Amino acid sequence: MAAEIVNPRSESVNEGGSGPEGAQDGFFDPAFALHRGGKMAIRATVPVRDKDDLSLAYTPGVAKVCSAIAEQPGLVHDYTWKSQVVAVVTDGSAVLGLGDIGPEASLPVMEGKAILFKQFGGVDAVPIALDCREVDELVETIARLAPSFGGINLEDISAPRCFEVERRLQERVDIPVFHDDQHGTAVVTLAALRNAARLTGRTLGELRAVISGAGAAGVAIARILTEAGIGDVVVCDRKGIVSADRTDLTDVKRELAGFTNKAGRSGSLESALDGADVFIGVSGGTVPETAVATMAKDALIFAMANPTPEIHPDVARRHAAVVATGRSDYPNQINNVLAFPGIFAGALQVRASRITEGMKLAAADALAAVVADELSADCVIPSPFDERVAPAVTAAVAAAARRDGVARR
Amino acid sequence: MAAEIVNPRSESVNEGGSGPEGAQDGFFDPAFALHRGGKMAIRATVPVRDKDDLSLAYTPGVAKVCSAIAEQPGLVHDYTWKSQVVAVVTDGSAVLGLGDIGPEASLPVMEGKAILFKQFGGVDAVPIALDCREVDELVETIARLAPSFGGINLEDISAPRCFEVERRLQERVDIPVFHDDQHGTAVVTLAALRNAARLTGRTLGELRAVISGAGAAGVAIARILTEAGIGDVVVCDRKGIVSADRTDLTDVKRELAGFTNKAGRSGSLESALDGADVFIGVSGGTVPETAVATMAKDALIFAMANPTPEIHPDVARRHAAVVATGRSDYPNQINNVLAFPGIFAGALQVRASRITEGMKLAAADALAAVVADELSADCVIPSPFDERVAPAVTAAVAAAARRDGVARR
Repeated sequence: MAAEIVNPRSESVNEGGSGPEGAQDGFFDPAFALHRGGKMAIRATVPVRDKDDLSLAYTPGVAKVCSAIAEQPGLVHDYTWKSQVVAVVTDGSAVLGLGDIGPEASLPVMEGKAILFKQFGGVDAVPIALDCREVDELVETIARLAPSFGGINLEDISAPRCFEVERRLQERVDIPVFHDDQHGTAVVTLAALRNAARLTGRTLGELRAVISGAGAAGVAIARILTEAGIGDVVVCDRKGIVSADRTDLTDVKRELAGFTNKAGRSGSLESALDGADVFIGVSGGTVPETAVATMAKDALIFAMANPTPEIHPDVARRHAAVVATGRSDYPNQINNVLAFPGIFAGALQVRASRITEGMKLAAADALAAVVADELSADCVIPSPFDERVAPAVTAAVAAAARRDGVARR
Repeated sequence: MAAEIVNPRSESVNEGGSGPEGAQDGFFDPAFALHRGGKMAIRATVPVRDKDDLSLAYTPGVAKVCSAIAEQPGLVHDYTWKSQVVAVVTDGSAVLGLGDIGPEASLPVMEGKAILFKQFGGVDAVPIALDCREVDELVETIARLAPSFGGINLEDISAPRCFEVERRLQERVDIPVFHDDQHGTAVVTLAALRNAARLTGRTLGELRAVISGAGAAGVAIARILTEAGIGDVVVCDRKGIVSADRTDLTDVKRELAGFTNKAGRSGSLESALDGADVFIGVSGGTVPETAVATMAKDALIFAMANPTPEIHPDVARRHAAVVATGRSDYPNQINNVLAFPGIFAGALQVRASRITEGMKLAAADALAAVVADELSADCVIPSPFDERVAPAVTAAVAAAARRDGVARR
């Protein structure tokens, strides 16, 4: 390991500085204090102590490595960090619950994501917040970045642009593209639902689910539940059930209407809940208890809006067999960090060219299986800090990539 | 410091693998062995051990940091790694002496550069090898990346595109853009020349220099020597002296002809050398000893082509008072690593919006001053491993940025 000159940021930490946590402001906020100078750094994994080291890691030694890759392009995976590093890419248009705050202001989230990739999946990740908004621009820009990375994690890009960006980008590049707000959430939701169904003695095929929210997460959850064989899914947006007879649907919602809502319901979210087995909230709205009370026996309620769940867990518990939220202070937290580190670690391990539906389903199954022997109403999904999670997801995703023919080693 | 899951790359190191250094190939190459798995990694600089850590470094704690930056954009420098990280950007079109090998094959050089940034300047750097070639595309793509970085180090982009990319990009973004192949080389060359002149009892104003090579390095050296007040500079390309009467000049060379060659010489490189005080080779050609012999007394010969200097150091020594090369196995190595880490560290320290001519001249002066008390024919420039270099260059560049009004703190 190379010795490192002390990072200049340590000075600014000691300086006190002028930010919101500065003593001169009369208060101290641990979130600001922690963020000062950022949350990540680069380190060299080879020594650069003397001119012999330099002549191997840089000129002239590096030239033969470059020449070898020029002749045999696949060697880039062996002799650079490409197959180890993911770009965490955003345009800052849909950041957390904050909305469109722009690229710079989104950086703390992207850095956070990057360190979670490292911590939980052993995957290096680089925050890339882009100063452009058009789908064409995003696709073109990210495609041009692709030679440097082993995968692209799209993050906090607003719907419906996110769907087209992901689809078109994956057509352009030969590395995995994964919009975590969609698929990470979908994978973890499916895992929890699988366990909740098992706990209450039902198959997925017996369940009718209502999803509140037709944005990135809602659409992806509807898709993965359908692929996993759930009985029926009804998706609701602000105007109620997404049904084929509506004339106000976007392309994406029209597609949704085509494969969901088998019973052809129309009407409000409340009406959809009548007799439903599952509520999945990814909307940020609120659902009145009177509607919750009309759900079927042994209801499964996943109220995942943050920080305020669509149905308060205390209310939900009065009507449901299993309650999950997006919060860390209640049981059964649906947290994407359970999925994305292992999914990318598995994809990178076998140098997958894309992330298939099979790989996502395998990730959900593996995640569910981690707590199979300890299932309870308060444990349908592992804790983010359960060390069994990332290795299990990684192995399952790598194996699925091989089965699906997208692995390159 | 967060504990890290062992990096998956360590497995591939142990696997042996299928690359050129594999035992099954019957030979072992230390450069390939060193490069396996790449040369760099990310590390978290904050802990993510439990849900309290997670709630500060990620949601919900991160949200208030994002909101603060959205309201007060300058805070991005305080609360992210932006002001600590440089993008090392190439299109792979002019890599070392290898030429146009494309983005993937250039990655080992970009990673090498990144770890030198860290090792010598304490600056984080991320390799970005772009899959595009048009000047418009490069400018637009890199400008879109700018929110994530505190500076842009352009690398190994072929001339003459590199000149326009740098100029137009700097007009677009408010962070420093620096093409190291031009300005890094120019700064180190000026530093060495300043010391060589002093050692031989002359001022820069007394010297006439001949530069062989009108590419990225040659053009930048001609500019910085002119700014530093050298007597006259004559630049030669493959067709001889770049002079205003030539009809085959590119825009850049026509500009060169305007501020160099005060005596209005024309003819061959050999004719230019007759009576010249300084030879600076950044061409890769060779110069016959008969021409070297016509140089003035106490000639200063910087034959910097790698791996084969334009004039072999043993030959040069027969005719020169000071000889420098680009090689580490001869005295006086003109190595960019003496400049770029400190230049960016200084620029980032004061959050400079660009790198001015004053900052480059200050870097050269500081670099020259490091060995002022130990000057000799074999020591006109410090060793890359001289620990005084980066702090001296950093401080000088930061001070010059303040003087030039481009510092933002």
